[in-house]
Amino acid sequence: MSLLLIAQNRDLHSLKKQLLELDSNLDVDIWPKVEHKDRITFAVAWNHPKDIFSNYPNLNAISSLGAGVNHLLNDEGISKNIKLARLITPSLKSEMAEYVLNAVLAYRHHTTRYTDQKREAYWSKHSIIPKAQCAVGIMGLGEMGQSVAKLLIKNDYLVNGWSLSKKSIKGITSFTENQISDFLSETNILVCLLPLTRQTQGILDLELFKKLKSPSCLINAGRGQHLVEEDLIYAIDTGALSSAWLDVFEEEPLPANHLFWNRPKIMITPHVAAVTDSKEAAQQILENYKRSLSGMDLINEVSRENGY
Amino acid sequence: MSLLLIAQNRDLHSLKKQLLELDSNLDVDIWPKVEHKDRITFAVAWNHPKDIFSNYPNLNAISSLGAGVNHLLNDEGISKNIKLARLITPSLKSEMAEYVLNAVLAYRHHTTRYTDQKREAYWSKHSIIPKAQCAVGIMGLGEMGQSVAKLLIKNDYLVNGWSLSKKSIKGITSFTENQISDFLSETNILVCLLPLTRQTQGILDLELFKKLKSPSCLINAGRGQHLVEEDLIYAIDTGALSSAWLDVFEEEPLPANHLFWNRPKIMITPHVAAVTDSKEAAQQILENYKRSLSGMDLINEVSRENGY
Repeated sequence: MSLLLIAQNRDLHSLKKQLLELDSNLDVDIWPKVEHKDRITFAVAWNHPKDIFSNYPNLNAISSLGAGVNHLLNDEGISKNIKLARLITPSLKSEMAEYVLNAVLAYRHHTTRYTDQKREAYWSKHSIIPKAQCAVGIMGLGEMGQSVAKLLIKNDYLVNGWSLSKKSIKGITSFTENQISDFLSETNILVCLLPLTRQTQGILDLELFKKLKSPSCLINAGRGQHLVEEDLIYAIDTGALSSAWLDVFEEEPLPANHLFWNRPKIMITPHVAAVTDSKEAAQQILENYKRSLSGMDLINEVSRENGY
Repeated sequence: MSLLLIAQNRDLHSLKKQLLELDSNLDVDIWPKVEHKDRITFAVAWNHPKDIFSNYPNLNAISSLGAGVNHLLNDEGISKNIKLARLITPSLKSEMAEYVLNAVLAYRHHTTRYTDQKREAYWSKHSIIPKAQCAVGIMGLGEMGQSVAKLLIKNDYLVNGWSLSKKSIKGITSFTENQISDFLSETNILVCLLPLTRQTQGILDLELFKKLKSPSCLINAGRGQHLVEEDLIYAIDTGALSSAWLDVFEEEPLPANHLFWNRPKIMITPHVAAVTDSKEAAQQILENYKRSLSGMDLINEVSRENGY
């Protein structure tokens, strides 16, 4: 039995090393160098070539190398009886929480505006945006969303959440699917941490932005496909949104001629909100590998029906 | 008896209005329009013309309009039997704490660097600076310093403090005057919130920067005169400090030709860390005015000996 690591444009040797440090008896292959394809029972995948998994007849589980799994769900070459898992490590959750807190504080304290002023040697003061105008609404209350919510609550922000099922989390007002208008009308700072599914694709559009409480701001750390990019530009240009902070994009890296680059009110970070730590990743992957060998449910196993 | 509000380049009408809302019987004059100089017993001052207070023979107390009082202590025209007070309001303390947390998160998450990259339409990732390399050392553990310390501790930072007298604050390792080298060697992110006195002027110099634990970063939200500006440029250019975040400067507004403006690793905010809220200010000023009439000690009364 062997484990296969497969990713395009990403060096997987440090992950292999971490896995072998945990268990020196493991057989670990890094794609495309695979000697015995029939020995592969478990794969770890990120940005994999489509249809590649049909080459491994004895594969019974695949783990994503991150929290997102849409690259696996969208690959119809993956047989339905192969179990899928997301990778959610403690540092992934804390990094995401701090990423959002940083974006919220930067919005309130005008950090990107002062950085731009600095380049012009221009001294001009702007009032801090008071907390009372910073009710945060989190779309998606999974592990990432809950981690963000907890850090914001600890820092005395009012936090609302929107998710498929009503959640009972201390300090959060939880809204469900059909209450989205109520949720938006109570939200100044909208944080998208949804999984990417057929239902959530393109959910961040002009109609939604218009329902937010003014002044409003968008933070997207979900997936680029959640956002209708031209609607965001229109909303920023017309003042329907006062600013946006984006970590993910339809096309990554964001093309150099994209309109987002020259909108001062749109902040861009290059998909860095939460980066999987290979040591922590190795621990969860090894645990799921062992579970898959014994036929147990996986940690963070994905429901194909829900799409996460 | 009357109250005098005196400041250059600052509109004081909203403060006067707040004072009269609290007590409509107050006599409040805004300099330079003062009819009966001999009726003035209490003054509120910010950036006042030197020696002006000798015009008010019955003055017995002056409140600063902010946390700093060096403008009062340095004016030898103010008689020693006039009581002095600092103004420290709840929002001043919380704003300062959030200002520093914002600077710390921006440092860890490369916010100014990503803002600069955005202007160049340049996509390049940088690793988050881990918390383990972000031990914070606060110089000055007065009301502002303690407020900053508490928020950082709540956000799981390791916090050291340095002050004239040893402080016992939960979660902080407190260092005193002659332990400054030990304090610096345990500190990555140095936060200056000292009062400006003869002892602290120019304290932030190259010799001090060299004693910090690497990687190191300076946040100055004290006074511009705490910093030897040419030493900071040398430290940044030679890598002795990895970055600096400054809110205060020797000359404000910072002159357009100042060398700080074109150093990407030096962030500049235009003295906005904590701005006195006139409603809260009015409450403390009124309380101190009444105390001064009855000869009581003032709230936040300044010791001329300590310089704060």
